[in-house]
Amino acid sequence: MLPIVKGLLAGERRALARAISIVDNDEPESREIIRQIFSKIGGARTVGFTGPGGAGKSSLVGRLIPECQALGYRVAVLAVDPTSPLTGGAILGDRVRMQGNLDDEKVFMRSMASRGAVGGVSKSLRNAIRILDAAGYNLVLVESVGAGQLEIEISKVVDITAVLFTPHTGDNVQAVKAGLTEIGDMYIINKSDLEGAGALYNTIVDLIGDTDRKPVVLKASAKTGKGVRELAKSIDKLLKEKSINYKERERRMLENELRDMVLNTVEKKASQMLAGSKKYSEFVDKLTRKEIDPYAAAEELAAGLFR
Amino acid sequence: MLPIVKGLLAGERRALARAISIVDNDEPESREIIRQIFSKIGGARTVGFTGPGGAGKSSLVGRLIPECQALGYRVAVLAVDPTSPLTGGAILGDRVRMQGNLDDEKVFMRSMASRGAVGGVSKSLRNAIRILDAAGYNLVLVESVGAGQLEIEISKVVDITAVLFTPHTGDNVQAVKAGLTEIGDMYIINKSDLEGAGALYNTIVDLIGDTDRKPVVLKASAKTGKGVRELAKSIDKLLKEKSINYKERERRMLENELRDMVLNTVEKKASQMLAGSKKYSEFVDKLTRKEIDPYAAAEELAAGLFR
Repeated sequence: MLPIVKGLLAGERRALARAISIVDNDEPESREIIRQIFSKIGGARTVGFTGPGGAGKSSLVGRLIPECQALGYRVAVLAVDPTSPLTGGAILGDRVRMQGNLDDEKVFMRSMASRGAVGGVSKSLRNAIRILDAAGYNLVLVESVGAGQLEIEISKVVDITAVLFTPHTGDNVQAVKAGLTEIGDMYIINKSDLEGAGALYNTIVDLIGDTDRKPVVLKASAKTGKGVRELAKSIDKLLKEKSINYKERERRMLENELRDMVLNTVEKKASQMLAGSKKYSEFVDKLTRKEIDPYAAAEELAAGLFR
Repeated sequence: MLPIVKGLLAGERRALARAISIVDNDEPESREIIRQIFSKIGGARTVGFTGPGGAGKSSLVGRLIPECQALGYRVAVLAVDPTSPLTGGAILGDRVRMQGNLDDEKVFMRSMASRGAVGGVSKSLRNAIRILDAAGYNLVLVESVGAGQLEIEISKVVDITAVLFTPHTGDNVQAVKAGLTEIGDMYIINKSDLEGAGALYNTIVDLIGDTDRKPVVLKASAKTGKGVRELAKSIDKLLKEKSINYKERERRMLENELRDMVLNTVEKKASQMLAGSKKYSEFVDKLTRKEIDPYAAAEELAAGLFR
């Protein structure tokens, strides 16, 4: 067994942090770490928090931690930031603002770098959750910056997706209409102490009223703490209710993961084969002379790669 | 020849708009359109405009159009928006604000939807540029909303990349440091009428001073029009200077495009093969029973697909 795996199974925070960095950066050791812990896991439940920037995800998650601990969970937090050169690192700043939780030995918090490809985020996240699971955390709260495609992807990796809104972010209602209604198991009106919270609550209840899933709609305020205990209880209840479907859910998740990984491997391999291919550079020549079009060239080359 | 190709070669705007929609949505007809025009193109030059939101790209491009026309170019504009459910359609609103240009018969403007994958944007963009080229536009201005990965991708598709900054967007300098210095052939301090423009100009000159490429740094104001003619002239000069390398550049672009397309085709094919594969579902079963780990399963499955 790798020393790092021994360490994280023993609950050493440094080993845990390092292991997550390794999977997040897709370092070669990832594979062996996951292989060694894979048979030891399966207990952790996961909740994703998503929503527009400024919806107060970090503060709410900060408040939620002790409430979930009070319900008996060992809590870890992963913050996913679809890092661009322009916003990189912003989320780490938020972390620091979370009141004192970073010093709490019972909670583990991490920002995931996950630069670049959207598909890369799922992979990092799944494996980070496995590592936390192996280290004995049984509730992982995943926080993401609202960014379209990414939210949908994260919702496929977690057990429960909570979508946050606040009365004062302008385009709330459009956002709900535009697709977030499909991914939420819970809708949270955060900053419920602000004016307009009641109206927003009603709007959201109306908008999702037509769906079969009957998601939970709740009001909470990270500032005053109101509604946070109820939120924790509601999450606990949902996780327990949903438990009947975990086997089915897990199978579907593993199916998606395996598919992603196979496609990734295939792509890497095809890329290597191309790099050394004489035919490839001949086709590029033909393209520059306009003797063939890109579609025809791509098809011929791709056909040559498969069994 | 497809009627739509006949139409766009004859300069019919409706055929042109429809053809761009077809490639943007990756409809089946794309292939035939590109095949029929591919041997007829190669004259259009392209300039990408990128930078943080609020840097005034649309306004500046709007001002630039008549100046480029005055230099003899037939100008088209493509606006790329990395659409998320939360921001979708915003850029079309910007379009409408561009003063009167939409009615100008000599200029063609289009927003590209390009939802989802980053790689999809390059493909749409390359083919939209080809269509505009075939329709007789010899200068395509490509505008994109600053979004990290996307900017880098667009910079690989265009001949010249212009990065815009303004004195009042807070994190300008960090942004420059964080990677934009690598993609710009030009740096434009827009809104140069505002306070701090001079200081920002100096900072940027300092920051990029160390690079070999010696990019152009310019001040301009879309509001007053100051510096816009100089910008147009500078673009014209750069395009003409660079022309000695166009062959090499084009080859590299075609190489990238062919690679992307092959990998795409390979991925689609692998995905289809998996969907019908008994082995795939057997491996998923094994995963749920934890008899194999995801890495090992993916590798075995992928190996089975190649020659």
